[in-house]
Amino acid sequence: MCTAMTVRNKDFYFGRTLDWDTSFGERAVITPRGFGVRFRMEPPQRMHYAMIGMATVVDGYPLYAEAVNSCGLCAAGLNFPGNAYYSETAEEGNLNLAPYELIPYLLGACADLTQAKAMLQDLNLLAIPFREDIPLTPLHWMIADRSGAVVVESTACGVRIYDDPAGVLTNNPPFGFHLQNLSHYGNLTAAPVKGDFLDESGARSFGLGLGCHGLPGDYSSTSRFVRAAWLLSHRSEMKGESACVAQFFHLLDAVAPVKGSVLTENGKEHYTLYASCFNATRGVLYVRSCNSPTVWAIDLHQREHESEKLIEIEIPQKTEFSFL
Amino acid sequence: MCTAMTVRNKDFYFGRTLDWDTSFGERAVITPRGFGVRFRMEPPQRMHYAMIGMATVVDGYPLYAEAVNSCGLCAAGLNFPGNAYYSETAEEGNLNLAPYELIPYLLGACADLTQAKAMLQDLNLLAIPFREDIPLTPLHWMIADRSGAVVVESTACGVRIYDDPAGVLTNNPPFGFHLQNLSHYGNLTAAPVKGDFLDESGARSFGLGLGCHGLPGDYSSTSRFVRAAWLLSHRSEMKGESACVAQFFHLLDAVAPVKGSVLTENGKEHYTLYASCFNATRGVLYVRSCNSPTVWAIDLHQREHESEKLIEIEIPQKTEFSFL
Amino acid sequence: MCTAMTVRNKDFYFGRTLDWDTSFGERAVITPRGFGVRFRMEPPQRMHYAMIGMATVVDGYPLYAEAVNSCGLCAAGLNFPGNAYYSETAEEGNLNLAPYELIPYLLGACADLTQAKAMLQDLNLLAIPFREDIPLTPLHWMIADRSGAVVVESTACGVRIYDDPAGVLTNNPPFGFHLQNLSHYGNLTAAPVKGDFLDESGARSFGLGLGCHGLPGDYSSTSRFVRAAWLLSHRSEMKGESACVAQFFHLLDAVAPVKGSVLTENGKEHYTLYASCFNATRGVLYVRSCNSPTVWAIDLHQREHESEKLIEIEIPQKTEFSFL
Amino acid sequence: MCTAMTVRNKDFYFGRTLDWDTSFGERAVITPRGFGVRFRMEPPQRMHYAMIGMATVVDGYPLYAEAVNSCGLCAAGLNFPGNAYYSETAEEGNLNLAPYELIPYLLGACADLTQAKAMLQDLNLLAIPFREDIPLTPLHWMIADRSGAVVVESTACGVRIYDDPAGVLTNNPPFGFHLQNLSHYGNLTAAPVKGDFLDESGARSFGLGLGCHGLPGDYSSTSRFVRAAWLLSHRSEMKGESACVAQFFHLLDAVAPVKGSVLTENGKEHYTLYASCFNATRGVLYVRSCNSPTVWAIDLHQREHESEKLIEIEIPQKTEFSFL
Repeated sequence: MCTAMTVRNKDFYFGRTLDWDTSFGERAVITPRGFGVRFRMEPPQRMHYAMIGMATVVDGYPLYAEAVNSCGLCAAGLNFPGNAYYSETAEEGNLNLAPYELIPYLLGACADLTQAKAMLQDLNLLAIPFREDIPLTPLHWMIADRSGAVVVESTACGVRIYDDPAGVLTNNPPFGFHLQNLSHYGNLTAAPVKGDFLDESGARSFGLGLGCHGLPGDYSSTSRFVRAAWLLSHRSEMKGESACVAQFFHLLDAVAPVKGSVLTENGKEHYTLYASCFNATRGVLYVRSCNSPTVWAIDLHQREHESEKLIEIEIPQKTEFSFL
Repeated sequence: MCTAMTVRNKDFYFGRTLDWDTSFGERAVITPRGFGVRFRMEPPQRMHYAMIGMATVVDGYPLYAEAVNSCGLCAAGLNFPGNAYYSETAEEGNLNLAPYELIPYLLGACADLTQAKAMLQDLNLLAIPFREDIPLTPLHWMIADRSGAVVVESTACGVRIYDDPAGVLTNNPPFGFHLQNLSHYGNLTAAPVKGDFLDESGARSFGLGLGCHGLPGDYSSTSRFVRAAWLLSHRSEMKGESACVAQFFHLLDAVAPVKGSVLTENGKEHYTLYASCFNATRGVLYVRSCNSPTVWAIDLHQREHESEKLIEIEIPQKTEFSFL
Repeated sequence: MCTAMTVRNKDFYFGRTLDWDTSFGERAVITPRGFGVRFRMEPPQRMHYAMIGMATVVDGYPLYAEAVNSCGLCAAGLNFPGNAYYSETAEEGNLNLAPYELIPYLLGACADLTQAKAMLQDLNLLAIPFREDIPLTPLHWMIADRSGAVVVESTACGVRIYDDPAGVLTNNPPFGFHLQNLSHYGNLTAAPVKGDFLDESGARSFGLGLGCHGLPGDYSSTSRFVRAAWLLSHRSEMKGESACVAQFFHLLDAVAPVKGSVLTENGKEHYTLYASCFNATRGVLYVRSCNSPTVWAIDLHQREHESEKLIEIEIPQKTEFSFL
Repeated sequence: MCTAMTVRNKDFYFGRTLDWDTSFGERAVITPRGFGVRFRMEPPQRMHYAMIGMATVVDGYPLYAEAVNSCGLCAAGLNFPGNAYYSETAEEGNLNLAPYELIPYLLGACADLTQAKAMLQDLNLLAIPFREDIPLTPLHWMIADRSGAVVVESTACGVRIYDDPAGVLTNNPPFGFHLQNLSHYGNLTAAPVKGDFLDESGARSFGLGLGCHGLPGDYSSTSRFVRAAWLLSHRSEMKGESACVAQFFHLLDAVAPVKGSVLTENGKEHYTLYASCFNATRGVLYVRSCNSPTVWAIDLHQREHESEKLIEIEIPQKTEFSFL
């Protein structure tokens, strides 16, 4: 379970919750432009855009969950079990990538969504795990910049690229269902409603907020999609970095499962490990850990020239509160 | 619109969102024990417990929205329009208080909920505004300590004190409705469910989180009550102050209206101005403003001896992010 | 479980589903005006209005589930377990009735709702079973005529008479909750809605009927109340007896539990044993058994003079279809 | 709007509601086996199975909305606007049919679903209206017999045949969505639930029926599908023709829009014109008009030898009640 979303204020914001039952050693990782990214079937990118995101680093390779590059192009991978299908054979003339390569390849090579969409036309996702002992993760992706967002799905029916006017991605089922499902909620409104349908009933209205009665509040993939899409399409435009970042985390928090509210089949708690928000325009990653209310910031442009190696930054898991 | 809630971990936490369409100059206010609180019809409390909370200070008097005292007794007033009724005449032998006096009176005089409940037996709430030019606010209250919570309502039917096993309070209608309304949600579970009711259908489950499908996601008073009560009753027990405070804000964020999602009849945005959380055991107030993701802390015990005057502390409305 | 409702077309219609897990020998019963009805604590009615309804007859006494009298006053008793409370002692000067006496007393004595309401002012319902071996049934009642409807509840708080502008009664909880609960559904409409809230999404609308998305479809007491009230307030006015009766059964069928959809704690099927509809203006009872689609009619005025004894009419449990 | 469904008791039943805003002259029509059915692109069926169903007859041709043939194979066409796509050109070697020909062709030629499925493999639906002045109707179809059901859809993606384990069909969107959508309702049960999730709350349960709280009650295509599918999968097995037919109409009535509850964009009432139920095993059509509660029966086998011409039977629009 995860929810990714995009918000356009003066700057462009992109981020996600990462919902799982156990931490996987994720940290902020900057891939500087001189790093040089290698791929299994495609030639390496010696010169590429720098990028920052949340990742684990294995054998010196950044396995990004989500990232933004120095041009403001963003990408996130979300769990898609049972539906993701990766092909067994490379296809000549196509863009043959392992699933874990998709984010660094696109962000390394493309300056914007238009370039990314062009590249994705020929995508062939291969069933190649990063290492023998690391299983393939079933994923689908949201790729976005200020101009819009697309969803990339590789299923038994092949690779499909969908425009995503909602600016949201969650998990199963395939994206087409989610977009269709929004049609159920056309009668919801942010405006107040008359207390009820009986003019003469004398029942007093409960007050504000009844116009969106019917919005689903659970943490299923489909309900998170609807809630996020509805809130995004009704949000105010914010001004100032503090307010924009606060808004983004409010939006994520509206769909982030609180620890205990979702259990796996083994009875483990499935919850939001971290929430991230990129100011894609400025190349800043904001991130907040589950057990700490503080939002930390990391600036790609400030640090991308430090090194030609991956820069790994641990996110504090605890807040030491500063007292007023 | 507002939501108050209580959480018992190792320490006891109490807090609320304050949802309104315009700021009212609220700030953190400490009433030190030597302040001396005056009342309209009741004798002043020269010796009283110190307290901290969010308030506006008018003519040197703390008009608390919510507060905790140095013993860990907590109180919050929430909007209750159309149902709150205050009596016109004081009644001899009763506890005659103006609505704005209820929080300072109880927290000044009572060490715990048992004492507060005893005092509330004779409560008579009077239709006395703080000042001619400040209208009476229609309110009901949650009073709580580690042992439990009660709701105080003064309606046309008189003053009623309800046990609140849910540990939640929102707004209209009267409390009895909210508690009854929970009965609708007995089929919800944090555990996963089989994908659907058709064994043979072949439709794949959407994944985790479907067990609580049916939980309402809107921002009406009743739906916020249900969602908060359900999440509270399914939450994990947390350890460590950072994690406990993070959990409390996660819970508040699940019911806090995002700016734009709720409009008033005049089309103004009604949203969460601030969210507060008391560690009632330690006398610490944590608070977060709408447009700033940072949680600020203020320690009652550290500062209650500074002065015999009200200590007013402004909460920063903006975060200057610190970069890692 | 049961649902009672009222419909005003040119004539006035009143009826109900009777939902239970086992038949109790119900049949149509006419109490002719010369029958003479006896009561435990009140003087007998030697002269009374004739009435017709569904009842069991025990020891020569009509135990009505619902009935209409020759003036068009209607009454129905519905299950109210856990909330109904009957007093142990008769009160001098009050109207002291056993629960099973309420329907025959009111319909015997009152020509209309105004008279009934006046009488109900002094009602004291006594905990007297019809016979030692027949347990007291916990009930509340809807009393109605063309001018309106009231609900009568005797709970631990005493007897309360509520105006019922919805023209609906189901079961628990007390009536006030149901009326308040309607406030949740003020955003529903019979009109179509735009496909969804995303103009640019390109998702096609699913078509008509989405305006009332959010209307609950289950068979709980509260959801049946909402559904019935919403449908009643949006129904067309019908003309002609055939169309009016068809409409009434359509409305009942929208809330009548299909066999198998509701189970008791013992796993027994709880379903609609029969559905009844009175044309109260003309004194006709229409009734349909569970396992037979035919609506049978019985005319009070045609038969009330046949006898001074109760006239019992069995309702066929099976339809022999007539072929066109 | 329409809902079709199948029920397997001792006999096999199939039927539907036909929901529209205006009557189209529908009546029961028997096509005797000697009639001889002609097609635009396919050779005529001189010898074919007899069939009965609801249809309009134009220029001597039966335009069936739904029908069953003498072997028990059933078919119904339901509105599918915006999604139905018919091809412009006939394809050699395929089964080239106009949409209005699909039902008579399949029922004329196939003894069971297996044969029908084989034939449907090569289906090519052509954009040929019955007559210049009769517009093409956008439809999809359910074909069923005792062994199961399939849905036939011709969209811009081509012709697809889906197994339909739910035994239900409504309208938009395409069938795959409906089947997936069922996954949302896996937490619903016919069994009672504990009153609420707060053991200690003291709130009394509202009673039976809360286990399926969350079932949608509106008349959108998707909600009718869910409600019908859930009720079908929880229904009891019935015995005896009267009870089986009564059950079928109860099921249809649970999804049939009551007049006034659904309006078109022009403000016209969209409602159930008629409800039909075939006993497919015995070749009997049961049908009920909107404004009349009586179920009429017509026996295919009794009348198929009367003539070689179409036999048209008007369904009475009014009930003359027979009094007990």
